[in-house]
Amino acid sequence: MPELKEVIRTIPDFPKPGVLFRDITPILQKPNLFRGVIEAFANRYRDANVEVVTAVEARGFIFGAPLALELNAAFVPMRKKGKLPYKTISITYELEYGEDSIEMHIDAVQPGQRVLVFDDVLATGGTAQAMVRLVEMAGGNVVGVAFVIELVDLKGREKLTGYDVFSLVQL
Amino acid sequence: MPELKEVIRTIPDFPKPGVLFRDITPILQKPNLFRGVIEAFANRYRDANVEVVTAVEARGFIFGAPLALELNAAFVPMRKKGKLPYKTISITYELEYGEDSIEMHIDAVQPGQRVLVFDDVLATGGTAQAMVRLVEMAGGNVVGVAFVIELVDLKGREKLTGYDVFSLVQL
Repeated sequence: MPELKEVIRTIPDFPKPGVLFRDITPILQKPNLFRGVIEAFANRYRDANVEVVTAVEARGFIFGAPLALELNAAFVPMRKKGKLPYKTISITYELEYGEDSIEMHIDAVQPGQRVLVFDDVLATGGTAQAMVRLVEMAGGNVVGVAFVIELVDLKGREKLTGYDVFSLVQL
Repeated sequence: MPELKEVIRTIPDFPKPGVLFRDITPILQKPNLFRGVIEAFANRYRDANVEVVTAVEARGFIFGAPLALELNAAFVPMRKKGKLPYKTISITYELEYGEDSIEMHIDAVQPGQRVLVFDDVLATGGTAQAMVRLVEMAGGNVVGVAFVIELVDLKGREKLTGYDVFSLVQL
């Protein structure tokens, strides 16, 4: 999708000096492009019998929810610690500095369900790896891991060896 | 939508003692019901020439993004302070205890654009009122304010006098 690459906005020094942040919000300003992104993912997974699409807050929800609807799958939100109201399972993972936790409702994924893991950006892969593990803790079967943007130099894909990893744009 | 009322899960004492939290995640587990919710909003606003749907993180994104696609409108995410990467406008509003801020990208809404403000739950109305003001600060024209759930006893609707307020379920 060449138009997609042009529309993504690069913000220098966000959220901290030295980082080039890839801003996906201009995609959302163009309904046809936003729809094209959702359809590109839906076409990629149309025959994969996806039963659940999961995404992590907050940007992941923007793409994950429409994709779940397009695939006629359940949508499972993963959230930061303490945000989900019902009983949860959680996982803590390392960041470049410090650590972070994400949680999922304990009844959100059933054993054996076919789950597509989605996030907007694949950077170092820590969050995606944690998402995959959380799905598997619940007994789910990860049928793919999908991203709008893959930051190739950060080699996040190496943390997802053995899984079907797909990205729409490589930067 | 009678099924919707049955599916919403009530969690006592979340996020603090004495609060009955209305959990919308079971809606997302049922693709036909989730789609029905989006279609109910789309039908309500189909002839309102909505150009922008805006919602606030994180749950608002889950419904707001598919609704924007369904209405062929732009989707504008509002976020907590410091989360949006580009230049923003922001508003601070009072909560029951303390205050909170939300932000929007400075170029997200153009003067005169017809904007639908969406959130999952109307409680005291503070957040919705702040969202409406932020849209108007950018010169946008608020054509409606929509919620999945309205907690009627909290009278949030009174903070939105003069606007077209709509909710799918009243609890």
